[in-house]
Amino acid sequence: MERLKRHVCFGGVQEVHRHRSAVLGCAMEFALYLPPQAARGPVPLVTYLSGLTCTWENATTKAGAQRYAAEHGLALLFPDTSPRGLDLPGEHERYDFGSGAGFYVDATAEPWSANYRMFSYVTEELPALVGGAFPLDMARQGIMGHSMGGHGALVSAFRHPDRYRSVSAFSPIVAPSQVPWGRNAFTGYLGPDEAAWAAYDATALAASTAWRKPVLVDQGTGDEFLAGQLRPELLEAACATAGIPLTVRRQDGYDHSYYFIASFMGDHLAHHAAALRG
Amino acid sequence: MERLKRHVCFGGVQEVHRHRSAVLGCAMEFALYLPPQAARGPVPLVTYLSGLTCTWENATTKAGAQRYAAEHGLALLFPDTSPRGLDLPGEHERYDFGSGAGFYVDATAEPWSANYRMFSYVTEELPALVGGAFPLDMARQGIMGHSMGGHGALVSAFRHPDRYRSVSAFSPIVAPSQVPWGRNAFTGYLGPDEAAWAAYDATALAASTAWRKPVLVDQGTGDEFLAGQLRPELLEAACATAGIPLTVRRQDGYDHSYYFIASFMGDHLAHHAAALRG
Repeated sequence: MERLKRHVCFGGVQEVHRHRSAVLGCAMEFALYLPPQAARGPVPLVTYLSGLTCTWENATTKAGAQRYAAEHGLALLFPDTSPRGLDLPGEHERYDFGSGAGFYVDATAEPWSANYRMFSYVTEELPALVGGAFPLDMARQGIMGHSMGGHGALVSAFRHPDRYRSVSAFSPIVAPSQVPWGRNAFTGYLGPDEAAWAAYDATALAASTAWRKPVLVDQGTGDEFLAGQLRPELLEAACATAGIPLTVRRQDGYDHSYYFIASFMGDHLAHHAAALRG
Repeated sequence: MERLKRHVCFGGVQEVHRHRSAVLGCAMEFALYLPPQAARGPVPLVTYLSGLTCTWENATTKAGAQRYAAEHGLALLFPDTSPRGLDLPGEHERYDFGSGAGFYVDATAEPWSANYRMFSYVTEELPALVGGAFPLDMARQGIMGHSMGGHGALVSAFRHPDRYRSVSAFSPIVAPSQVPWGRNAFTGYLGPDEAAWAAYDATALAASTAWRKPVLVDQGTGDEFLAGQLRPELLEAACATAGIPLTVRRQDGYDHSYYFIASFMGDHLAHHAAALRG
């Protein structure tokens, strides 16, 4: 692991590292924010999963999260959104598939299955790496994300209710099996058999998950992708049936941008802190 | 004036506009944040002047300023850093001269004098434009900036103590006549006669300005440009002699980046709010 950047920020440090990922078979970069409290001992970790086309950089520079992380004593982990540097056939042709669009699944279809294993990367390999190298209390982990990353966060929590103590999402893709972005990606990464898709679909997982902690979702009503790709009402119905305490806050006029995320980041990190620092 | 973008943000709106600048002789873009209070009547305006290589976008997306502006009821104006779209000879060859590096002066040397009039643009033309189009109380204006923009903010306040009620700067170039960035830029824009440079040098202006309101400067001690280009001690000495109440806070380990700016933006906008909302 090689440190590429280090900036003092809100009394803590914002770092960027590069490492060789065995799971993905390539070199990866990630950003990690350590709050001032980390100088005195291990702190809880919240992983933030970004959306389509992003790297670690978008949320790290635009979400305004470090201020709240410093207030609450939370570390923040910002992974990339796909394997990098591979140049697989067709990997860079679409903004919503391939590079920048790993969808946080472990691909089973060729040629993606050898490298596109982002679910294992963000839930296992990368947490193990940072947990062994930084003052992090890995028994206290939360996960959050935006859009494709909101999907990833919800799926991670629902599949690993013992690993994560808190979850939240901004404008998540809640039912990828039922919307164009998800159907295209899952067909490519998981193959045409839709039965295999349910393992990466938060709305489908609601019926079987043991997750019963509060789930916080913020959704802008001015989001151009709301009706076609996001459809939070599908998750609301599934969680109501399953008895999962989901709160979807519809925020008047907000769009899909980081201006929206920044506006409610404070509420989200307070939500995580309540579960992780309690 | 044409609106290019509009995002709801912290209950207000973050907009980006394009207009034809008569002063600069070209089309320009700027960003404007209107806090929620602007829906009920005119609010004070703080202009943020960016540093080398920036456009309106850097501070608008990375400084985390909108949260505090919304809390205090302040509008924020983010101008660009030079004329655009001209392609003058040599205009795009250096990061520290020409496009992206207008240094907030009204150039007098050829070929720059026809267009590079950023001082008049940011202190007169652009405020007049936005003051006529948005709910802004133009009798209550503050100005701030970073690096080259910190220089611009200090000079604007010292030259127009009746126009601005508050000023602050992050890692400003306080004495451009005495450092390489400034000497190169002033030679190009103002010609080799150094006597003409004093009108755009905050340290030189300290002796003659009528400004006596508090001046807040934050400077990271880990800033790579501190000793060579910024040299806040020169402004401290000049302000002490002149009786200008300057506070330079040396922030341990912080660098020249937006991670530094974001960390202390709250203090700066509180400083402006105390003068503008009082």
